[in-house]
Amino acid sequence: HTEFNPVDHPHRRYNPLTGQWVLVSPHRAKRPWSGQDEKASTEALPAYDSGCFLCPTNTRVSGDVNPDYAGTYVFNNDFAALMTDSPDAPPSDNPLFKTQGVRGLSRVICFSPDHSKTLPELSLESLRGVIDTWDTQIEELGKEYVWVQAFENKGEAMGCSQPHPHGQIWANSFLPNEIERKDHNLKTYYQAHGTNLLLDYVQAEMQDGARTVVETEHWLAVVPYWAAWPFETLLLPKTHIRRMSELNAAQRDDLALALKKLTSRYDNLFQCAFPYSMGWHYAPFFEANGPEGKPNTHNTDHWQLHALFYPPLLRSATIRKFMVGYEMLAETQRDLTAEQAAQRLRDVSDVHYKAVDA
Amino acid sequence: HTEFNPVDHPHRRYNPLTGQWVLVSPHRAKRPWSGQDEKASTEALPAYDSGCFLCPTNTRVSGDVNPDYAGTYVFNNDFAALMTDSPDAPPSDNPLFKTQGVRGLSRVICFSPDHSKTLPELSLESLRGVIDTWDTQIEELGKEYVWVQAFENKGEAMGCSQPHPHGQIWANSFLPNEIERKDHNLKTYYQAHGTNLLLDYVQAEMQDGARTVVETEHWLAVVPYWAAWPFETLLLPKTHIRRMSELNAAQRDDLALALKKLTSRYDNLFQCAFPYSMGWHYAPFFEANGPEGKPNTHNTDHWQLHALFYPPLLRSATIRKFMVGYEMLAETQRDLTAEQAAQRLRDVSDVHYKAVDA
Ligand SMILES: O=P(O)(O)O[C@H]1O[C@H](CO)[C@@H](O)[C@H](O)[C@H]1O
Ligand SMILES: O=P(O)(O)O[C@H]1O[C@H](CO)[C@@H](O)[C@H](O)[C@H]1O
Repeated sequence: HTEFNPVDHPHRRYNPLTGQWVLVSPHRAKRPWSGQDEKASTEALPAYDSGCFLCPTNTRVSGDVNPDYAGTYVFNNDFAALMTDSPDAPPSDNPLFKTQGVRGLSRVICFSPDHSKTLPELSLESLRGVIDTWDTQIEELGKEYVWVQAFENKGEAMGCSQPHPHGQIWANSFLPNEIERKDHNLKTYYQAHGTNLLLDYVQAEMQDGARTVVETEHWLAVVPYWAAWPFETLLLPKTHIRRMSELNAAQRDDLALALKKLTSRYDNLFQCAFPYSMGWHYAPFFEANGPEGKPNTHNTDHWQLHALFYPPLLRSATIRKFMVGYEMLAETQRDLTAEQAAQRLRDVSDVHYKAVDA
Repeated sequence: HTEFNPVDHPHRRYNPLTGQWVLVSPHRAKRPWSGQDEKASTEALPAYDSGCFLCPTNTRVSGDVNPDYAGTYVFNNDFAALMTDSPDAPPSDNPLFKTQGVRGLSRVICFSPDHSKTLPELSLESLRGVIDTWDTQIEELGKEYVWVQAFENKGEAMGCSQPHPHGQIWANSFLPNEIERKDHNLKTYYQAHGTNLLLDYVQAEMQDGARTVVETEHWLAVVPYWAAWPFETLLLPKTHIRRMSELNAAQRDDLALALKKLTSRYDNLFQCAFPYSMGWHYAPFFEANGPEGKPNTHNTDHWQLHALFYPPLLRSATIRKFMVGYEMLAETQRDLTAEQAAQRLRDVSDVHYKAVDA
């Protein structure tokens, strides 16, 4: 009779934030590979590129000219997926053909004027500037929109059409699927246990340590127990913080440090600019306050601010995990345990390899 | 006051099978592109490749030798994500660390001995052979497993490591997320309306026609109203069929025709071997019957057999849609309406471009 061992035996793990299971097949990491290779992003870029539409002083396709900015720079996306003034859709009485009109806007946030730098290569001061810009944008847009998604797509493997360090901010007149679902699950847990799911989780992970990747004074980054992507991480404050606006100066400075260490470990793993999509989840605004700013009365104690990193690479700078076939039709599947992934990220330095070489 | 128009105005559409919304941004298809290009798969392959582990008479990495097969050929995957005999995981009392032991197996199904052919290039007779093999495999594995996922990953963009025409069959001792969720939604609709959701849907689509891509005597392929991928399609029989085993000979022959036409339209759209993941959903077995075959007592009237095609290409043979950033963190987003996609697929021939050239 064999005893269960998560490193040898296929199993499922439950994600309490999404209510979904993940199939873990740790014995499978050994199979040979003859599929698509990603281009490894290792080329050196210039600090300024006259053909880049995000560099300071350059003209964008809209005809607007970027200012000679020094820190971050935010502008409205010239090809936004949403419009601020689109009309409502007429109601449908057929449950099979349901449409909803939506409003919103998309902004681009340049993280730095330096075309050649990525997040882990920015100074702590610049990273602090990025954090403050995220916060200011979210608070400003949260006055009119119930949800504001701040995110970064990094690298060609993640469909990013632009090497200049930048992220995006999409404001929505609706709660997107993922936020609605997470709100429901966090609330249900809060009602059942009287405690905050993610605060209980951060405590448990600090005690365990097997999935910890970066720990700073105020922040913890772990490969979550239920990770889907090979080196997925969850970054969260150790105390109850519902939105970025609640972070004090020390927590913000410390977040800059945690971000720098985490993204440096990513780049060091395969010695490349590690591609990923990352973004922030936090208590939604629920009610658009409107310009008059009537206070939001929703209870959001079940929420905890956190960042999610979804990086696709699996085995090297050029071999990624494909979420296809079985994953699309049946269930997410991964080829190593969360603990194995965390160990690999802990085994590399938290100082960026380019900084060491320099 | 502007009137809502789905071709100009961003909106959400509701997927009644998953209970999720999709953000539709039809005005966005015009933005420029400077991101990753896919390799277009247009190279001519030999009918037999001595280095291919799926070609007849070749030796696989396991040491097994493939027979000199003429139709389809099925074998156990040498790098399966599941094991037939893994132990159960010990129960956890912490809802944040839930694990479930699972059993299953993975098989590979070669669609043809001809290394150079893809589904649309197979004869109707060969396609009928593929259909019968899917059915036989599902019925056989369904005696021991509650779910059997038959699928095909095609093309390097979909992580397919092998050009030889083949699919996979994964049998599971559990209901995967997507099946569990779909079962719930189909059942809820059935209880509320007294009718089968997908049969109601197929009727509505036949009457409308705006999203129809292929219609044969017994089958309909549409870009579903709630499609996520640019040229996603849903292929379903016009009458109530819970599982493939219920299809009669005429319906099977006609499915071969529908598959040939649909995949030919795909290839003709951008004149390439159109990448996709496709697979079958149908009434789960719910109870493993065991070798003795005690009858399954679950009511599955709310189910309807259907195939799903998830192709990633967006604008050309080399430009795909990336489901990243906003999509991963918030909600699936698409850049053209389902009706526009269906129109484009109707505008090309249902005879494969290589067959026309020949
Ligand atoms: O089994 P394959 O074809 O080697 O692998 C492919 O399909 C599997 C099932 O969809 C996925 O888990 C893998 O990520 C993908 O690369
Ligand atoms: O807006 P971008 O960077 O051009 O586009 C990228 O990010 C978007 C938001 O995640 C996605 O919808 C696109 O598919 C992706 O290519």
